[in-house]
Amino acid sequence: MNGAATNPDCHVLAYAGAQVKKGLDIAQKLGAQNFVFWGGREGFLTIHNTDVAAELKHMANFFKMAVKYREKIGLKCQFLIEPKPKEPCKHQYDYDAVSVIGFLKHYGLENDFKLNIEPNHTTLAGHSYEHDVVMASAFGMLGSVDSNTGSPDQEWDTDQFPMDIRNATLLMKTIIEQGGLQPGGLNFDAKVHSESTDLEDLFIAHIGAMDTFARGLRNAVRIIEDGIIPGMVKDRYSSFSHGIGQKVEEGSASLEEMEDFIKQNGEPKVTSGKQEKYESIFNHYI
Amino acid sequence: MNGAATNPDCHVLAYAGAQVKKGLDIAQKLGAQNFVFWGGREGFLTIHNTDVAAELKHMANFFKMAVKYREKIGLKCQFLIEPKPKEPCKHQYDYDAVSVIGFLKHYGLENDFKLNIEPNHTTLAGHSYEHDVVMASAFGMLGSVDSNTGSPDQEWDTDQFPMDIRNATLLMKTIIEQGGLQPGGLNFDAKVHSESTDLEDLFIAHIGAMDTFARGLRNAVRIIEDGIIPGMVKDRYSSFSHGIGQKVEEGSASLEEMEDFIKQNGEPKVTSGKQEKYESIFNHYI
Amino acid sequence: MNGAATNPDCHVLAYAGAQVKKGLDIAQKLGAQNFVFWGGREGFLTIHNTDVAAELKHMANFFKMAVKYREKIGLKCQFLIEPKPKEPCKHQYDYDAVSVIGFLKHYGLENDFKLNIEPNHTTLAGHSYEHDVVMASAFGMLGSVDSNTGSPDQEWDTDQFPMDIRNATLLMKTIIEQGGLQPGGLNFDAKVHSESTDLEDLFIAHIGAMDTFARGLRNAVRIIEDGIIPGMVKDRYSSFSHGIGQKVEEGSASLEEMEDFIKQNGEPKVTSGKQEKYESIFNHYI
Amino acid sequence: MNGAATNPDCHVLAYAGAQVKKGLDIAQKLGAQNFVFWGGREGFLTIHNTDVAAELKHMANFFKMAVKYREKIGLKCQFLIEPKPKEPCKHQYDYDAVSVIGFLKHYGLENDFKLNIEPNHTTLAGHSYEHDVVMASAFGMLGSVDSNTGSPDQEWDTDQFPMDIRNATLLMKTIIEQGGLQPGGLNFDAKVHSESTDLEDLFIAHIGAMDTFARGLRNAVRIIEDGIIPGMVKDRYSSFSHGIGQKVEEGSASLEEMEDFIKQNGEPKVTSGKQEKYESIFNHYI
Repeated sequence: MNGAATNPDCHVLAYAGAQVKKGLDIAQKLGAQNFVFWGGREGFLTIHNTDVAAELKHMANFFKMAVKYREKIGLKCQFLIEPKPKEPCKHQYDYDAVSVIGFLKHYGLENDFKLNIEPNHTTLAGHSYEHDVVMASAFGMLGSVDSNTGSPDQEWDTDQFPMDIRNATLLMKTIIEQGGLQPGGLNFDAKVHSESTDLEDLFIAHIGAMDTFARGLRNAVRIIEDGIIPGMVKDRYSSFSHGIGQKVEEGSASLEEMEDFIKQNGEPKVTSGKQEKYESIFNHYI
Repeated sequence: MNGAATNPDCHVLAYAGAQVKKGLDIAQKLGAQNFVFWGGREGFLTIHNTDVAAELKHMANFFKMAVKYREKIGLKCQFLIEPKPKEPCKHQYDYDAVSVIGFLKHYGLENDFKLNIEPNHTTLAGHSYEHDVVMASAFGMLGSVDSNTGSPDQEWDTDQFPMDIRNATLLMKTIIEQGGLQPGGLNFDAKVHSESTDLEDLFIAHIGAMDTFARGLRNAVRIIEDGIIPGMVKDRYSSFSHGIGQKVEEGSASLEEMEDFIKQNGEPKVTSGKQEKYESIFNHYI
Repeated sequence: MNGAATNPDCHVLAYAGAQVKKGLDIAQKLGAQNFVFWGGREGFLTIHNTDVAAELKHMANFFKMAVKYREKIGLKCQFLIEPKPKEPCKHQYDYDAVSVIGFLKHYGLENDFKLNIEPNHTTLAGHSYEHDVVMASAFGMLGSVDSNTGSPDQEWDTDQFPMDIRNATLLMKTIIEQGGLQPGGLNFDAKVHSESTDLEDLFIAHIGAMDTFARGLRNAVRIIEDGIIPGMVKDRYSSFSHGIGQKVEEGSASLEEMEDFIKQNGEPKVTSGKQEKYESIFNHYI
Repeated sequence: MNGAATNPDCHVLAYAGAQVKKGLDIAQKLGAQNFVFWGGREGFLTIHNTDVAAELKHMANFFKMAVKYREKIGLKCQFLIEPKPKEPCKHQYDYDAVSVIGFLKHYGLENDFKLNIEPNHTTLAGHSYEHDVVMASAFGMLGSVDSNTGSPDQEWDTDQFPMDIRNATLLMKTIIEQGGLQPGGLNFDAKVHSESTDLEDLFIAHIGAMDTFARGLRNAVRIIEDGIIPGMVKDRYSSFSHGIGQKVEEGSASLEEMEDFIKQNGEPKVTSGKQEKYESIFNHYI
């Protein structure tokens, strides 16, 4: 939409509306299963000339029109929003996974959309590579993945082909744990580096990145099937399966009960998080 | 709470619950008007050992217990959550204003809490100084401000006294526009620099920072009373006060109407955002 | 040169050499006073395919050819290198002011070049706005300034017009203190924001930025003429004007003398850096 | 030295001098082979109260005293400076490898010092993990390595145990290529994460990190022995082994010769950097 949904000129917004209508009509004809709203321009360059509250409302109303039109034409496809924090804008409303979820919840749109996560955008928002995939999944909102990457020391959108096996393993583990991405999937929205000027580079890049994800998938399957790391995590949270912990889990505990529990049981012991142990075991699968 | 609400050991969580109960009892005795839950440790150091979905639910249930106990004892004070993105954790759930709002909405807590924004945390989340104050206000959730600052080139929490008049002006303008912060306020959660070792430095720092906010307030009042910048912004969004724009504003427009509008009116003209003009006028008030 | 001096193909490097020869011939005809070598592409995208030691030597030898040709044609102009840390490359050799100075010293080129500092590049290298201007000046190597800026929360090259009076004041203070920039100067290598689409925006931006520097210059002159801050700094370093301090300053002190001094004088007292006092006084000039 | 060498009070500097003298005397008794000057506090918190030129000179003179005293007592150990960009200071003079090299060259100290690189500091300076090891080695100045790490999304000094096999491979490859580090070595200046509270965590962390470097070393050896990647790099730079390229390499080429070469040979062809191919092959060794 290129910033149209938050444009201060309703003529521009109407133009974007006409385009989205056209897009949905074509999606219907093609039998599309996913329809991504790329959030990469919905935001502002300077707060001086911007009415944020008005723009958020316009954006929400714009999405509601798309939802209505999808219903009207009987289009059965998943709507997806792709978070992106900034660039080209100074700030974009779809900053990261949780920002988008907050926006959708605020405007009652959470049942009509899922998220399409691009890890390169995740790192630009100050998170680690796998973070938004994990968070979207934890909120039940992970719909699809744009599987390109940046470099940790380059803080703009480089859209590189993903070549890091460790990162791919973490991603595939999360996707397996939530039972897959269907109807979404992994999509290469990547481009070769500017100096990769041979035609064959495009093929090499796709093959290398697919191999990376294939190794990540295999690693993740072995981690889950071996059950060592999942078992350690399960143990770590096991105090929530009974007694006062179970009541917290179910939402029936009270502060008074907690005080009573502490009066009876005294101060808690310190328990190690054992991060280096997890990291060392994880490395055995890489 | 020091990470207790998301601790995998329910004994630790219960201990935190007992502490918060005590805190609320004391707040009641003191006639407290605000009660801040500092989000600075609710998060994780590594995804390897963490069940994010479980932790988010525990954190929500913990807050619900606090809300219930507040009601039970008849405590009339504003609950506030203070976003902080990271440090000491790798990732904290209360990453920024919109993250916290998304969490509160997801768990039905949005009427029981407002936000206490610290701009130093805002910049650590990758935003500009005034950003979370603006965003929290746009969502109607700005309750109070911890008015300390960092340096743009230092990406950890330095808690400096705010001395930038431009930033203070933007902050005060947002606060005036939403009608103040009551029962919250501006709070210096700052400390002098490590090399400022004289007793008088503490006084100088407070005076210098208060002067900065006083100048910011005066500048903001003049900006609003002069009406030049507010008028330019109002004009910029004026197409939403009538016709198809008004229908977008009210949420009654449809994609089909938008398509019709474009068929009748053709392509939109490009309109300048005039950022440099806004910046130049703004500088006249500094 | 667009990366040519460090290109692994000497045919490309030769092409760049021919271009620079042409540029110098034209500079001669035009009576140029400054000739900038923009370092923005001399670097690498990946260490996997790069021989850093070879590239540094090639770059040095390339600059030496330019120096020789300048002498040969009797061109009397200042050669300048403009540091830029990254973008488009992952790493560029001219990362910041001190990196370039280190390179020039290593290859014996320090008398043939000065630096052209762009503060937007300085902030991309992780420093504060004024930092490289200060550092280049401290090393006696500040030759000219590209006076555009970025935003602290945008970590790529936005080339905005500078509008921050505080930053402009710090810059002009450094330039005055070193006795000016001649034959260099302040140059706007900036562009208007992407949404500033009116022709007049270009004029407004130049006027606004020039006004910002004019205010910065006036502030800096007042700071220097008042003498309060310069006097405080002079006092702070006054122990180096006599006794053991003077010997350190002159390079004639020894560790043995220092040990003797401490044996006679005992542990040093803690002295406050008084940063907040400096900041508060500085604010009076803004 | 904790900032003492750049302290504006010569009494503090003298105290540091006495301490360093003592340290050198003890190093002599212990038969020390390396002596590290940690640069982590030599810098400034605010430019307002700082005379950078004076501090650089004091720091240089301080190092010269240490060199003289080392000679005087006949101590045969390598002096090392450890770059660190910031934290606790806003800016530290030993920002990164090339900054330190520039400083040493400027003051004629380059034959008396080498560099002790900590990759966690390298990433804080905006570079990739392996960068300063590569750069120090390219300048012939790599003396030792503090092998701890940070996380790419945490921009302060976390001193974690290194667990990334890819990074360890790049590091060991550079060290092998320069013929080792002797008399320096790999040193764990790391600490376990704050939540790793068991005694055994310290052992697990050391074992996991040593295993990581062992795998990195094996990977690097195979990369070098296989010769595929080294051969590709050698080919890439092969045009500098004859003709005009060789003259550039030897420093005997001129701009006029380059122009002649282009007149005879025409425009250069574009050659792919083949980054994705390098990355894919590299992944086979991980």
